[in-house]
Amino acid sequence: MSVVPDRGFPVEEFESRTKRAQQMLAERRLDAMLVCTEPEVRYLTGFHTPFWQSPTRPWFVVLPVDGKPIAVIPAIGASSMTATWIDDVRTWPAPRPVDDGLELLADTLAEVADRLVDPSGRIGLPMGHETHVRMPLSDLDALRDRIAPTVFVDATDVVRSLRMVKSPREVQKVAHICDVVSGAFEGLGDLLSTGMTEREAFAAFRIDLLRRGADDVPYLVGASGPGFDDIIRQPSDREIRTGDLLMFDTGSIFDGYSSDFDRYVAFGQADDDARRAYETVWAATEAGLTAVLPGATTSDLWRAMAEVLDGGGPASGSLGNSVGRLGHGLGMQVTEWPSNTADDGTMLVEGMVMTLEPSLTWAPGRMMVHEENLVVRADGPELLSRRAPAELPILG
Amino acid sequence: MSVVPDRGFPVEEFESRTKRAQQMLAERRLDAMLVCTEPEVRYLTGFHTPFWQSPTRPWFVVLPVDGKPIAVIPAIGASSMTATWIDDVRTWPAPRPVDDGLELLADTLAEVADRLVDPSGRIGLPMGHETHVRMPLSDLDALRDRIAPTVFVDATDVVRSLRMVKSPREVQKVAHICDVVSGAFEGLGDLLSTGMTEREAFAAFRIDLLRRGADDVPYLVGASGPGFDDIIRQPSDREIRTGDLLMFDTGSIFDGYSSDFDRYVAFGQADDDARRAYETVWAATEAGLTAVLPGATTSDLWRAMAEVLDGGGPASGSLGNSVGRLGHGLGMQVTEWPSNTADDGTMLVEGMVMTLEPSLTWAPGRMMVHEENLVVRADGPELLSRRAPAELPILG
Repeated sequence: MSVVPDRGFPVEEFESRTKRAQQMLAERRLDAMLVCTEPEVRYLTGFHTPFWQSPTRPWFVVLPVDGKPIAVIPAIGASSMTATWIDDVRTWPAPRPVDDGLELLADTLAEVADRLVDPSGRIGLPMGHETHVRMPLSDLDALRDRIAPTVFVDATDVVRSLRMVKSPREVQKVAHICDVVSGAFEGLGDLLSTGMTEREAFAAFRIDLLRRGADDVPYLVGASGPGFDDIIRQPSDREIRTGDLLMFDTGSIFDGYSSDFDRYVAFGQADDDARRAYETVWAATEAGLTAVLPGATTSDLWRAMAEVLDGGGPASGSLGNSVGRLGHGLGMQVTEWPSNTADDGTMLVEGMVMTLEPSLTWAPGRMMVHEENLVVRADGPELLSRRAPAELPILG
Repeated sequence: MSVVPDRGFPVEEFESRTKRAQQMLAERRLDAMLVCTEPEVRYLTGFHTPFWQSPTRPWFVVLPVDGKPIAVIPAIGASSMTATWIDDVRTWPAPRPVDDGLELLADTLAEVADRLVDPSGRIGLPMGHETHVRMPLSDLDALRDRIAPTVFVDATDVVRSLRMVKSPREVQKVAHICDVVSGAFEGLGDLLSTGMTEREAFAAFRIDLLRRGADDVPYLVGASGPGFDDIIRQPSDREIRTGDLLMFDTGSIFDGYSSDFDRYVAFGQADDDARRAYETVWAATEAGLTAVLPGATTSDLWRAMAEVLDGGGPASGSLGNSVGRLGHGLGMQVTEWPSNTADDGTMLVEGMVMTLEPSLTWAPGRMMVHEENLVVRADGPELLSRRAPAELPILG
């Protein structure tokens, strides 16, 4: 069991993030960047609350090209935001549908929008792949009109570049939750048995993860049966029987950072096709691991894994039509940029936290997915999840 | 302990939702409605997975003015979506940044966009208060260009009207999780003691909720101390001491439906100001309850509670500047339309599930929030949470 890392981050971590972001803003001739989604706001400020689950209120952070970030938020968040390293916290009494922060935000953007070369002002806003703007579209349209001639410019690459490479403290948090989850997966034999329903198994596993030190288990999917191809499922009242496979996949959380890996087990016995499928995705992961090096690309990882999967039966044809990739980035969210696909081509650099996630369809309607979590080091991958057994574990 | 309700919904529930929605679409001369957020997709289809936590892939459901909803989704969701009542499931191999479903969605919208009066086509899209469009903004802009002269028209009132009034089966699910949470709150005295840290208290409470039958506890905030005004906080390593107040507020889940209420307790003793504050917000809730009747409005509830709070000390001045409302709707999300505010004015009808949530600042930096959950019945409120004690409970 790893030592529990410190909670939160020292101010210098946020200063470093801000400085890197501002360098990119300057390079792109952006006066500022606007973010309004939970991970981006947390990344820049440290503001950390599950209150984002309430859809009622929008939240904004404006990062000028110099100076500290400015929070433009509902008054209900003032106390929490003031406790972060942010000094400039501007609030309005949300919810106020007639003006839910728009005027305050527009005024703030006007303040920061004329510092650089273009006199009309250019504000970065993430609007590309894996992003969305978390505010009512009618308000966004009104905001665009209101700030004209200042324009929003896509800044996806800024937040993508920032968040994709993790600091040592971020890696520690992911490593810790991966350690907790590894222990829980290794203990499945003590927790589960035939006769339990899927729902009982899920509940037992979730509670076990919390007992072992997960803060929360927001992502838990799984299935049981002789085989299954729905890998994002909630539990049913189906009873686990001898000969079943069971899969759990969890994004558990420590201090706002996520694990994301799965494990398969069989109860009593497993048929040869299932064993072979397991061994193929395990071997594909091995191949992926050997390809992990700074300077290699996500497409190199994809190719290394796909080659093994292509040799493993009727896998290759179905790959592109199911999960769509063979792993991805990991950190504040259960999936993050980049994707291990044939044409993603993102270059790996030290500090990137990734999953390898080969999958194959081993019989009609039966999928096998294997996943490990790692951080890219100078000399190759450092596993954050403890490596799954090379053969399908048989419980009971 | 209530009987555990059935999971899921029979097809007629989705048929009824669809029919109500289509009636509103026809009244508004809309050819179809596009939704892309988790609650709306789940409401129309029954598609239920935590996979939405992954920001990578957009998901779409198109509801034509007649016929069944059409799912336009990543292939990874095909198996789950096909298991719902939806027949027409169109998939693409996401993630595919170069075209992440846009062409498929545009083609689907073109199919459904010329059925009504306006030959150019009008597609409803929720774009008002409490909504956002969950897809990359650059894709949304491209989609708007692509479907022209067909236009998106705000359809917030359609989903708002639909979701605000709950069916008996929906009410049962909220009632069940409120029952589970009520039991856990009533058992706090056995669970918590001075010397525990907030973090330990949170973990114990979360595990207790799961043991009592919550599927998950996605929303849990709280604080401890002689007083506090941050009511959306995560736990710290602060030790609970004699004389402390402790607040937990949880949105726990049963079958995709949420509770949302809090409780305060004191350890060993409580000072008179804290007791008085507790009694004031309790009395404000009583006043709110007497105002709950079909035909009354959310603003009537607000006024009934505000009048008591105004008599309760230095409360009134700070109200509008903190939480911003005195309760709200509840159901698939921890907060939903409508809001109990001075000017919201939404008329209550039978089947609406609401929270009453009066709050006051009883000393500088010290807030007291009280919350109950109810369903509007013909003759008044039916409490779903078990009523909090009239006096601040003292533990230990």
